[in-house]
Formats: sequence, C-alpha cells, structure tokens
Amino acid sequence: NGREAERESECQNILTGFKTSSVLNDSAREKVIFVHGKLADQEAVVIMEKTPVREDTLAELFSGSTLNLEMKNDIYSTYQLQAPPHLNKIKTTVVCPATEKHVKKYQRQELFLVEETGEDYQSITLPYIQQQSFSLQWVYNILEKKAEADRIVYEDPDTKDGFVLAPDFKWDQKQLDDLYLLAIVNRRDIKSLRDLTSEHVPLLQNVFQKGKEAILQRYKLPASKLRVYLHYQPSYYHLHVHFTKLGFEAPGCGVERAHLIGDVIQNLQSDPQYYKTRTLYFQLKENDGLLSKFKEAGKL
Amino acid sequence: NGREAERESECQNILTGFKTSSVLNDSAREKVIFVHGKLADQEAVVIMEKTPVREDTLAELFSGSTLNLEMKNDIYSTYQLQAPPHLNKIKTTVVCPATEKHVKKYQRQELFLVEETGEDYQSITLPYIQQQSFSLQWVYNILEKKAEADRIVYEDPDTKDGFVLAPDFKWDQKQLDDLYLLAIVNRRDIKSLRDLTSEHVPLLQNVFQKGKEAILQRYKLPASKLRVYLHYQPSYYHLHVHFTKLGFEAPGCGVERAHLIGDVIQNLQSDPQYYKTRTLYFQLKENDGLLSKFKEAGKL
Repeated sequence: NGREAERESECQNILTGFKTSSVLNDSAREKVIFVHGKLADQEAVVIMEKTPVREDTLAELFSGSTLNLEMKNDIYSTYQLQAPPHLNKIKTTVVCPATEKHVKKYQRQELFLVEETGEDYQSITLPYIQQQSFSLQWVYNILEKKAEADRIVYEDPDTKDGFVLAPDFKWDQKQLDDLYLLAIVNRRDIKSLRDLTSEHVPLLQNVFQKGKEAILQRYKLPASKLRVYLHYQPSYYHLHVHFTKLGFEAPGCGVERAHLIGDVIQNLQSDPQYYKTRTLYFQLKENDGLLSKFKEAGKL
Repeated sequence: NGREAERESECQNILTGFKTSSVLNDSAREKVIFVHGKLADQEAVVIMEKTPVREDTLAELFSGSTLNLEMKNDIYSTYQLQAPPHLNKIKTTVVCPATEKHVKKYQRQELFLVEETGEDYQSITLPYIQQQSFSLQWVYNILEKKAEADRIVYEDPDTKDGFVLAPDFKWDQKQLDDLYLLAIVNRRDIKSLRDLTSEHVPLLQNVFQKGKEAILQRYKLPASKLRVYLHYQPSYYHLHVHFTKLGFEAPGCGVERAHLIGDVIQNLQSDPQYYKTRTLYFQLKENDGLLSKFKEAGKL
C-alpha cells in the first residue's frame, strides 16, 4: 500500500542515529537548543525549538492533558502539564553535512561592536567576503524554483526590480505572532546595504510596497503591523529584506543589526552614496573570521 | 489505598472545566500564552509556557521521537518532531480567583507602526507633547542632586554639553549581563531626537565619549561591548541616552525605537536638519493618546 509506505517514510526518525558532540548554544527563554554531532558519519547541526502555544488548540489542551501540581500558595498555583503529544511538537532543523562555518554560526559567542568606515569596508570586509565565497546555491534554487517553489507567497519576475517573497525557515506559519518572511531580490549583483546607491531606490520601493501588499492579501496583516528591514552584516551576501511582525522580537531586529527599509530609502534619496561612505556599526561574534580581520588591522 | 488516591488527585485535571474568555497575551518567541477565563464560576488567569529543551534529555529525544519531514532544500531540512510526552511538559500557572488587576497585568496591547513626517511632528506630535506636559520633576531632581545622588556613576557639570550618568531602574547592578545606564543631559531645552541639529553634535560626542570612558572605568566594560542609543519616541521629553550591554536584548533596543548615537552624530554632521525633516518610524500601543491623534488626523 503506497499510502502506508509514504506514512512509514514520513515517520522514520533519521535522528535515532545522531551522536551528540556538544551543545553549541541554547536559550531557556526561547526554548531552543543547537546541537552539534554526527549523522551517519557526516557532521551535522540539529536545532530543536519548541513550538508556540496556539490559541486554536487551547480547548483540547485544557480537556485532554494531565496535570501535576507543583506548588500552591493562596490564589497562585503551578503545575506540570502533559499535553496530548500531537499538540506539543518540536520544530527541528537539520543541517547535514554541516561545515565548520555552520558550527561556528550556531555556537554561543562573545559579541563585539565593530565600527566599519567606508574605507574599512573596501580594505577589510569586501576582500574577506570575496575570499570566503559562501555558496549562494540555495538562494538561486529558490529564485529558479528548484526548491521551495510551493512556499513562495508572492513573486515579481522583473529582472531589475523583482523579487521572491517566502516564509523564513524560522517561521512555522502556524500563527501570525511570529510572522517572518524574506524578500529575495532577483538581481544577483547586490551583496548588501553597502552596495546600495540611489540607483536602487526603485528596487527597494518595489520590494517595500509589493511585499506589504502581498502580506496584507495573504495574511490580512496591514503595513502598520510590520517591521521591514535589512541586516548589516547580513548572513548571506545576496540582497534580501526581512518582514517581521511588530511586537515579535525577531532575532536580528535590534538597532545594532537592522536598518529599516524606510530609512534606507530616505537616506539614499538625499545622499546617493550614503551607504558607501558612512561608518556602519554591527556586532560580530568572537570567532567570526571578519572580527579577526578587524583586529589584525588594529581597528578593535 | 491512600497512595493511589494521592496519585489520582495529582493527575486530576482541574483545567478540564476551564472556560476560555480571551487570550490576554502570548509570545511566539518565548512559547508562552496568557489566557483569561472561568474556573468553576470564578475568574481565572492561566499561563502556559513550554519548558526549555534540556541537554540531559537529548539522547532520549533523538532516539524516542517520531519525525515528520516538512521541507528539504540542499543541506537544510526541517521536521516536526513529536517527543516522548514526559520530555515535553508545559509549565502551567493558575491564578484563581483572579482580580481585574491580574487580568490587566497580563493583557497585551496591540502595537502600531507610525510614520511621522517632519510636518506630522509639528502638527500632531509636538502639540500633543506640550498639552500633556508630563512632569519632568524627577529628572530635575536627579540633575540637582535632590534624588538618587548616591547612584550617580559619572557627572560632567558643563551647562552646555554636560550630563549625569546613572544606572537605569531596570538594572539591579548585580551582574553586567544586563548592564543598563542612562545619560541625562544638563540642558533642559532638548525634548528629543526631533530637536537635534548640528549645533548639538558636540553635546552628543561628549556624552558618547565620556559615557564610554566612565563605564570602562567603573565596570571594566570596553566600548566594543556597548550599544549606545536614543529612543524615539522617548518615554520622557528631556534628552537622554541609553547605554546597554551588547547581547542583552534590552526592551526598546529594536530598530523601531532605537537610534545609535554614532548614526545620529553622522547624520547631523552631513545634514544639520536631518531629524527635523526625516520621516521617523516608531511603534505606539493602542491605548496611547498620541496614536489617537494620528488616527484623528487620518494618518493610520
């Protein structure tokens, strides 16, 4: 029976053979853990994150769970609740085979604030990016519909100002509270904020406007509920724009990394070279190769 | 059998009869939900929070769970993992009977992103601020040493560019992880970012430089560990600058409220009227009087 075989394969647990080497990071606040180990002799990183408690499952949670009293004091009491298993999943991401860079990316690190002048970008950051040549194949797979085609929320095929809008990996799309989408531009010649000039204002305006419209249409969420921004440094050097829900403290929405697209557009309109010439501030982890380059240059 | 009766009572689910009235708040990031409802005719608040993923349960999580593939792209794949129920509990807190105060305490306010042009500031925000005339007496008490004098970390008495540096109330000063200090300027004629022009660059540079030096001296924390920024909108209209530790996600350090002082200085240096003329973005809670003014003006 094909159906059963399919079900079988869906439920097969490839993690049974996972051998943990170390916990790279975890957050008790966010209920997430990053584990490094081996999966059938290949290096792998496994990320497990508890899922949010969904409003539409409350009735079943209340009626179908078992409760164990921990503490009672006056009007306050605390319990351990054991939910029906299907209401209490863990979102699991596997990176396999994982490179040294992946392991470093997820490892908990000391943070340093870097001041990068326009010249520092040219002499330190740009050569470093070019030398790394991190693969962008997964981005091109999305743009070419070779992967995640069914996840695309909106697409503008224009080769100059077009983009693909899709949910970020981090969002399970089960609730709007942590809405997180990415607009990936079709153009492949813009690495980051640093490459933007007034020439790119129409591209940014197009992404901003059509991205907001697509989110309103699909999720009924108006622009006044959205935080729309670029990262600097980005985690990959192909221009993309983050759309997250206001009130959701998305990782990377802090002032030390995020740049509101509305500000970026205004800055480029009044100074075409704004992002070529400004000192930009960002944080780097202690084992980031770029941080070493800044240290070697005596900039930290 | 007393033992069995006890076990019975421990596992009895008092929430079976819980009638949900509304979800007061939830956080997809922290995997917590606050629910208001009735428990046997009494008002109650139930808080359910997923538990952190514990390192000592990893082996059993990997071997004893079922996995469902959601997405696969190149080296990345995501799954829904169903854990053995005893490894996936939900911490549940019940407040019963709950008063009106409890309900308000846990209730979330909707947030709205406001776009404020330079003209909107003049016609909507400024009149609102002036009409409110929030008392700044507590700020003047600090500047005049009538209060919190023993908390002052550093002081520059200059009447034009001077300031007082003191720990923020939110920081208990017990550890550096959540270091939070405020620099309050001596001048009383600058309400916020909107009032700043190139005339104030020496003031901002002074606060930035001497604030960093004072924190290095007192707390041995170098500038590369600090996030230094202004809020817009601020919570009170007397110019002040926030110093928080990098890596500590201080409330209000998001891109929708925080402006790095290094950026502010550069922007004023290249355009003296930058903050008078720019559209600024910020979030307001639904019951904020200023939000009503923007709505009345048809701006939202």
